[in-house]
Amino acid sequence: MTSTPKSIIPATVNPDLQKERDGASFSSEEFAAWWSKGENVLKFNREVRAYMQKDVDQGEMLQLQAKSHVEINEFSQRSAIEAAQKLRRLQQERNPGGDDYWPKLYDHPVMWGLVPGGNPFGVMYVMLVKALQAQCTPEQYEEFGKRVERFEICGTYAQTELGHGTFLRGLETRADFDPKTDEFVLNTPKLSSYKWWPGGLGHSSNYCLVMAQLYINNQFKGPHMFFVQVRDEETFEPLPGVHIGDIGKKMGFIGVNNGFLGLKNVRIPRTRMLMRHAKVNADGTYVSSPTNVLTYFAMVRTRCVIAKNNAYVLAAASTIATRYSAVRRQSPINPKEREPQIMDHVTQQMKLFPEIATSLAYHLASDYLWNLYDVTLSDIENGKYERLPELHSLSCALKVTCSSDSAAGVERLRLGCGGHGYLSSSNMSNLYVLATAACTYEGENTVLLLQIGRFLMKSWRSALSGAPLAPTVQYLAEVQKNPDFGTWTGSWENMVKAMKYTAANKTRLAFKSLSARLSRGETEENAANHTGIEFTQAAELHGRAFVFSSFTDEVTGPKSKTRSASLNRVLENLLELYLVKETLNQMSNLLRFIQLTDTDLRILQDRLETVLTKLRPDAVAIVDGFDFSDLQLNSTLGSFDGNAYERMFDAALKTPMNQKSVPKSFNELLKPFMKSNI
Amino acid sequence: MTSTPKSIIPATVNPDLQKERDGASFSSEEFAAWWSKGENVLKFNREVRAYMQKDVDQGEMLQLQAKSHVEINEFSQRSAIEAAQKLRRLQQERNPGGDDYWPKLYDHPVMWGLVPGGNPFGVMYVMLVKALQAQCTPEQYEEFGKRVERFEICGTYAQTELGHGTFLRGLETRADFDPKTDEFVLNTPKLSSYKWWPGGLGHSSNYCLVMAQLYINNQFKGPHMFFVQVRDEETFEPLPGVHIGDIGKKMGFIGVNNGFLGLKNVRIPRTRMLMRHAKVNADGTYVSSPTNVLTYFAMVRTRCVIAKNNAYVLAAASTIATRYSAVRRQSPINPKEREPQIMDHVTQQMKLFPEIATSLAYHLASDYLWNLYDVTLSDIENGKYERLPELHSLSCALKVTCSSDSAAGVERLRLGCGGHGYLSSSNMSNLYVLATAACTYEGENTVLLLQIGRFLMKSWRSALSGAPLAPTVQYLAEVQKNPDFGTWTGSWENMVKAMKYTAANKTRLAFKSLSARLSRGETEENAANHTGIEFTQAAELHGRAFVFSSFTDEVTGPKSKTRSASLNRVLENLLELYLVKETLNQMSNLLRFIQLTDTDLRILQDRLETVLTKLRPDAVAIVDGFDFSDLQLNSTLGSFDGNAYERMFDAALKTPMNQKSVPKSFNELLKPFMKSNI
Repeated sequence: MTSTPKSIIPATVNPDLQKERDGASFSSEEFAAWWSKGENVLKFNREVRAYMQKDVDQGEMLQLQAKSHVEINEFSQRSAIEAAQKLRRLQQERNPGGDDYWPKLYDHPVMWGLVPGGNPFGVMYVMLVKALQAQCTPEQYEEFGKRVERFEICGTYAQTELGHGTFLRGLETRADFDPKTDEFVLNTPKLSSYKWWPGGLGHSSNYCLVMAQLYINNQFKGPHMFFVQVRDEETFEPLPGVHIGDIGKKMGFIGVNNGFLGLKNVRIPRTRMLMRHAKVNADGTYVSSPTNVLTYFAMVRTRCVIAKNNAYVLAAASTIATRYSAVRRQSPINPKEREPQIMDHVTQQMKLFPEIATSLAYHLASDYLWNLYDVTLSDIENGKYERLPELHSLSCALKVTCSSDSAAGVERLRLGCGGHGYLSSSNMSNLYVLATAACTYEGENTVLLLQIGRFLMKSWRSALSGAPLAPTVQYLAEVQKNPDFGTWTGSWENMVKAMKYTAANKTRLAFKSLSARLSRGETEENAANHTGIEFTQAAELHGRAFVFSSFTDEVTGPKSKTRSASLNRVLENLLELYLVKETLNQMSNLLRFIQLTDTDLRILQDRLETVLTKLRPDAVAIVDGFDFSDLQLNSTLGSFDGNAYERMFDAALKTPMNQKSVPKSFNELLKPFMKSNI
Repeated sequence: MTSTPKSIIPATVNPDLQKERDGASFSSEEFAAWWSKGENVLKFNREVRAYMQKDVDQGEMLQLQAKSHVEINEFSQRSAIEAAQKLRRLQQERNPGGDDYWPKLYDHPVMWGLVPGGNPFGVMYVMLVKALQAQCTPEQYEEFGKRVERFEICGTYAQTELGHGTFLRGLETRADFDPKTDEFVLNTPKLSSYKWWPGGLGHSSNYCLVMAQLYINNQFKGPHMFFVQVRDEETFEPLPGVHIGDIGKKMGFIGVNNGFLGLKNVRIPRTRMLMRHAKVNADGTYVSSPTNVLTYFAMVRTRCVIAKNNAYVLAAASTIATRYSAVRRQSPINPKEREPQIMDHVTQQMKLFPEIATSLAYHLASDYLWNLYDVTLSDIENGKYERLPELHSLSCALKVTCSSDSAAGVERLRLGCGGHGYLSSSNMSNLYVLATAACTYEGENTVLLLQIGRFLMKSWRSALSGAPLAPTVQYLAEVQKNPDFGTWTGSWENMVKAMKYTAANKTRLAFKSLSARLSRGETEENAANHTGIEFTQAAELHGRAFVFSSFTDEVTGPKSKTRSASLNRVLENLLELYLVKETLNQMSNLLRFIQLTDTDLRILQDRLETVLTKLRPDAVAIVDGFDFSDLQLNSTLGSFDGNAYERMFDAALKTPMNQKSVPKSFNELLKPFMKSNI
């Protein structure tokens, strides 16, 4: 290689990007405060982020994908530990004795970028500690829960097995009570019973919370949780009977150290079954749990987290692709003029702006979901469980639509970056694999849609009998009462109504198919399986109708009075784009139930093109308002300064391959081959 | 780790998979012969494959993704060289002096699995040699073309730059003729002019065919090709003025060693410009090419290759997901019965079977395209260029729809494997990144759709004026002549007609929008940009209408007489599924122009569910008929023996992470941290 200048990245902002910022019609700072739920929150997040990101070398983060699986895992463990230490120091500085920095922020988005391959202790803090808090007796929590919290021991939560994921009752790991020794004996009797997937299980845990089928005197008592030591605390060697390791490289979450666990006659004291609810006494008597609501509730919470996080992932990808589309110039629109910023091509706008709008839509829908979660939680504390099925169903619906829409959206945005989006240093592929993973983890999407479908069938039946419905399915009863849609006007309110109307009618048709199959003599189960496709379609529309309604409420509702007119105009444009593009996407469903003329459709197409034009001058300022730092984005294409080519090139120069001008294998491999006269 | 048995993979076929094979209604051998274009071809492919794959360790291939970028590249270079040597030996054994094995089969699908990260010499054999053959004078080919063919030197073809891809005229690399020394002086004047992306350029080439803008006396003569030495033949050190290296890790093609190239006053003899067509004489006079058709034609050929290859990629993913869906059992349909094979869930069938049908659809459409290619090639040799725009447009349309449908299809299939599809050892993610790459390389899909859109506008205008149209756009004139669709019957013929009718009407609407913009005074260029979304929609439907028609022709046409009744029944089921699901997918477009009643739609939904049921017993036998070897699939989930769990587990045990029970970093990293009382 010939010499290259020391730093090829300019210290200035790309003028094309600066021009976009200067020309925006609104304040991206106001947007950022709104997006973050208040100026104080925004300020707090930025301070914590600055503290955490200080002295972090982004160059190393950009090379992560070039490392081996072993190196990536070591790097991730090291980064995760350093991040914990930093947070802990921040806690000491700002609020000694509290827990508002450490560990509370350990899985917060401000951590993004510090562990770009994923945190091997993520499951420990997101799931294990919470499960222990919810399921341990006070004595148990004192004995080992606190030790996990203090990181004296490290662990994970193991439910999924090689042979079973979403179907909990199918789990094969068993725990047999032995009254002679007052112990449980744990076994994974077959290869398919091995625990498989838990994050951090491979080489980052010495304890594990194991979900296993409880047997007492060979009597089946259903799945329970057992806290099992798997490695020696001093040497980290696996304990006798424990077969443990990493499951190998994956598409993404490359640093998370997902693992497997086989157990062969592993004995633990009786007191290591979590006994806050169900209990096994020393004499082998079993006291069942008064309610299984809390287990249930933990899953609901995780799904709320997913909807929120995936909206962020989509917003991050939107930021990268939008900034890159402002600085890349290609293909003249008019051959006599300079090549335009690619964002001036209407087809490019169509790749970018709908995804920006979709990020907002799910961000807002998941706010609503979290509110419902809080209400339901306080209801439960007062012994009221009525809204739980609704919350369960809504959290599933948002988890499914948000994970699938965000994955597809990130990929469209990646493709919108052309070939350069294929580079690991763009980070677009990493964002994609993060987003798409959520389609299968924590309840596979199709399985969840089928569950929602069954809930809709039940709700439809209740409505037919005049029974009261939960608020978010109330629209089913309304459509039963008034089956005529009325006139299509194309107003926002009318579009929301149309999506609900379509969802209700899809539910009606699925119900009709189900009933027809039942009356033809099919069993309930076979009829449900055969109506599966219609179940999933109705369920998806149920989710979409909800997103329509929560987005519209936020933009047009009373909160608009707290925002400036210029910010409101931008939000209105994003709402308009979202409603119009989704309505067009779902048009084949709509047209089945609602009369739209050719003129109506023409108008929708015109509105789509008009609102793209309106959003064009504000696009960069909007994604600036998502307020990601360069390290959070970890992308050569999407940095704040817009120096995309220089950063791509700089990252290439630093890749390990280029540290020697001639690869060491040349003399043994390529040279003799070229001389061999093939 | 406790001990594990020596080989945990049974030597027997999983009984669930065997049951599927025993129960099929047709011969997968007959299918395989049909799919391969004849028994003799099938036999030949299998023999070559067996020879090439002998002694290859699949275990190492399954661990490829766990290696570092440097190791992957070295491994890929080594494997590619060994494969070349094997092919060469086969050539010697079977037909000494010929070229039908080496190098002809070097980029054939039988090579899949030997270089699972991609072949760093792929561009050399797929593009460079062909470009040299087409563009060199006989003397030039003798001087350096043959050297490449014999692998005495190695090289690649460099067109794309950091700042410009699809837009050729925007390329910035320049070659100035210096009559004093009879040389060209090559420069990449800016960072954005660096060549960027060529496969093998990083550290696997000592020569490079460079596309550069030719200047004589500062007079611009347009892009031409220059054969440039970039590294010393003996030492492999970059030559003076040459800045060369690898562009870093990518989402896929991880072993292809894509590179960058900067040139600073690099001088080459005048005779190193490829001069078969355009010429520069020693006195600086320029003789322009009599035709630019051949350059054009090379791009067309590559797009035909892509359509074919991506159909194979989708078929491979279908094979893996289908076999896995036969051996995995989960979630009882009836709680009293054993958990079913997941393929018995209707929603799972809906994930698998449409992609099998889509593989066939594009396989057959690209056959038609290759025929048109051959016809056009012989026309060109006779000086007739009439069908070239049609071929160009059709090859673009198939490249676009096949790349985007296959990518989306592979991802649906991957998701259909649940969490396990996320494991690198499933190979599903690798197939995905192969498929999706084709959406941006060799002409970014949206740019191509816009080109097709312009071709459709031109054709529509020609048809209005009564001018004759090329066969594949003849339907536009037919719809103009007879604008009434008539009655929807739902027959296959009627569905083909409906798709063409819809494509034609979308073209009509786009033409109307374009005309309205022009008559409002917009320039041709701005009007085209503003109508971009409609252009792309019409173009996509044009492609789909063609696939409908070629698939239907193959299944219902005279060739059906050469097949057994049982094979025909299977192909008819796949055609039925393809037409019905695609018609439903495009329903919002169809309903705009064609009257379908609610009953018609209900019938389509019923047909969809019926044909899924019909295909269920034959699914495994169909994918067996795609005839991939285990090494070609390179997947723990999709092997012929169906021992998915054992193979996943075996691959995990062999991952480098698990070669030590305690990671070496434990004592320096995790242990002190746990003791630190955080």
